[in-house]
Amino acid sequence: MDIRDFFIWVNISVEERRRSLKLFTVGPVACYPEVLEAMGLQMYSHRSKEYFALHYETIRQLQDFISTKNEIFLFSSTGTGFMEASVRNCVRKKILCCINGSFGERFAEVAEANGRDVLKLAPPLGEPISTSELNEMLTNHPDVEAVAITHNETSVGLINPLKDLVDVVKKHGKLVFVDAVSSMGGTEIKVDESNIDVCFSSSQKCFGVPPGLGIGSVSERAMDLSASASNKGWYFDFKVWEEDQKKGRGTPVTPAIPQITGLNTALKMIERKGGRNWYFDLYKQRNQRIRRGIEKLGLSTFPRKGSESPTVNCINTPEGIEGATIYGKMREKGFELAEGYGLLKKKTFRIGNMGYIEMSDIDLMLDALGNVISSL
Amino acid sequence: MDIRDFFIWVNISVEERRRSLKLFTVGPVACYPEVLEAMGLQMYSHRSKEYFALHYETIRQLQDFISTKNEIFLFSSTGTGFMEASVRNCVRKKILCCINGSFGERFAEVAEANGRDVLKLAPPLGEPISTSELNEMLTNHPDVEAVAITHNETSVGLINPLKDLVDVVKKHGKLVFVDAVSSMGGTEIKVDESNIDVCFSSSQKCFGVPPGLGIGSVSERAMDLSASASNKGWYFDFKVWEEDQKKGRGTPVTPAIPQITGLNTALKMIERKGGRNWYFDLYKQRNQRIRRGIEKLGLSTFPRKGSESPTVNCINTPEGIEGATIYGKMREKGFELAEGYGLLKKKTFRIGNMGYIEMSDIDLMLDALGNVISSL
Repeated sequence: MDIRDFFIWVNISVEERRRSLKLFTVGPVACYPEVLEAMGLQMYSHRSKEYFALHYETIRQLQDFISTKNEIFLFSSTGTGFMEASVRNCVRKKILCCINGSFGERFAEVAEANGRDVLKLAPPLGEPISTSELNEMLTNHPDVEAVAITHNETSVGLINPLKDLVDVVKKHGKLVFVDAVSSMGGTEIKVDESNIDVCFSSSQKCFGVPPGLGIGSVSERAMDLSASASNKGWYFDFKVWEEDQKKGRGTPVTPAIPQITGLNTALKMIERKGGRNWYFDLYKQRNQRIRRGIEKLGLSTFPRKGSESPTVNCINTPEGIEGATIYGKMREKGFELAEGYGLLKKKTFRIGNMGYIEMSDIDLMLDALGNVISSL
Repeated sequence: MDIRDFFIWVNISVEERRRSLKLFTVGPVACYPEVLEAMGLQMYSHRSKEYFALHYETIRQLQDFISTKNEIFLFSSTGTGFMEASVRNCVRKKILCCINGSFGERFAEVAEANGRDVLKLAPPLGEPISTSELNEMLTNHPDVEAVAITHNETSVGLINPLKDLVDVVKKHGKLVFVDAVSSMGGTEIKVDESNIDVCFSSSQKCFGVPPGLGIGSVSERAMDLSASASNKGWYFDFKVWEEDQKKGRGTPVTPAIPQITGLNTALKMIERKGGRNWYFDLYKQRNQRIRRGIEKLGLSTFPRKGSESPTVNCINTPEGIEGATIYGKMREKGFELAEGYGLLKKKTFRIGNMGYIEMSDIDLMLDALGNVISSL
């Protein structure tokens, strides 16, 4: 049996495939048709002038998009590669990890796996990181070298007040690493204005591109620390990546050309349709349409009011119903949502609004959700 | 300007694109049309039953292909990720790196960047690793824990006598890591029979799939060493990958779904057309057709006779001509070869025979090469 027989969208066009199962996922999200078309282009040498044109144009697009003059690397890895890289290149001994859920936990786990001391600032689930608690922690622990912040914590559907938190870190003169995996593209990030040292994301979230590409900006200060770091490994060594990029050779390892072509295509599409502010506004509209819809159904969102993520809604299940039940029933109706994650696995389910989603899809999804909820 | 305008194959079908520029590359190689079609499929959750079906089926296909019962991991990285992984998980202090060219050098560089002591066995360029020298080196350095061997050194077009070399390493009871990036798929490798601890490759070579996926088998002994390794990092921790894979959860980070789908498709195509031995024979035929053709043109290959790679020919340029000149003129005629690499950059050029290449393409390429050579 061919694996593609599993898919209900086999042997139909991209557009028809999407119609057959509408994705409101938080992992790989639905990709834009022109991105998928770009993914299927024939390959060519990554040392050719065509690749270099694609590479440096994509870097410039991203620098514009997140307002930075910092070097941006296109890692052949997921976003997690940048967690490992940040720790290995820039932290000698101690890091403070702000934890709002599973991906904050992962950053701490990565730092510990690399032999660093990890201090944790972990408010109750659903609460954002508090600037005053962060300030207090940094005051009490002057040996902390860097602070890791999850901008948008997908697992609980929460966004942190990034600029305010980064300001606190900078007041203490520390480095700051921002996991922007599920926020970059979905809400504004101004890297240079905020003075973020490492700001990273992945292809498969708000850009609506398949997974397999890590995207991250690295400040000069982080670069300088990398230059004097020992035992930092090779694959994620910022200096190795910088050298090839600055010499016009692109990447030290073979780049994920399809995903980079897809990202380049997505960024051009955003530009053509109205630019990044138009895109951020689209995310807000989608997100609010979903939130208003679920409120009408009598459901509530998990995080503290005002801290709801603009890219994913984490929704409390009705009393006595498990998230997996709703996920399963929605899939039967042709909508792929996301189950709860980590500690919230049973008591929540999630509806992402990242990637290729039309407003009309949202209305159809909400209708279906209403039917599912009332049938329980 | 759209980046795709750079390509002479823009707005034409995959098949037409291939006709417009025939690839004899050694980096990303020409991909099979059905693989490219699979690359453009819509995404879906990597925690869905469809992904798990794809994932575990692909693992089984690969286990059959390289004759192993070892765990096989699908890293969201290039093949180089497995160099870093092998060193970090399995080597405490000292590794012996066998070096035939640039990719052997890279393995040593990766080991050094991870703080390990590196002993080097580096015969003159063009010579294979000698079993007797390897034996002598291991006898003189009993503290070596592992040996790294580049099976097929792309940079000089040379293949090593893998089984004989692994036998020597195993006689000394050491671990063996095999960089099979440009050999896996192009010639037979029997992992369990040879007792190879880590055997890794990439999607973008002999399988004819785009870049962005690392493929590697890991022995139980390597796994046991990983279990007790310290400071091994997280991203490439074999135990982290094993845990998710054994629990039926696939991968710890988001997998490169398009490339995995492409690889699954390529392996099915090989099976359908005659199986792995048919595929290895095809490589041999392509390779020899190219070698005979260049010999007819009065050109010679670089490596020692009998050690020529079955997947890429490294060819000495005619006296006084640089490799880049031939590369450039061939491109003008619609054929992308590969320039020389590293120390051989000026004095050689290379013709790969990996991926989607027809015998008739080879004849056309050789005709064009004849015209280029006689015009110089």
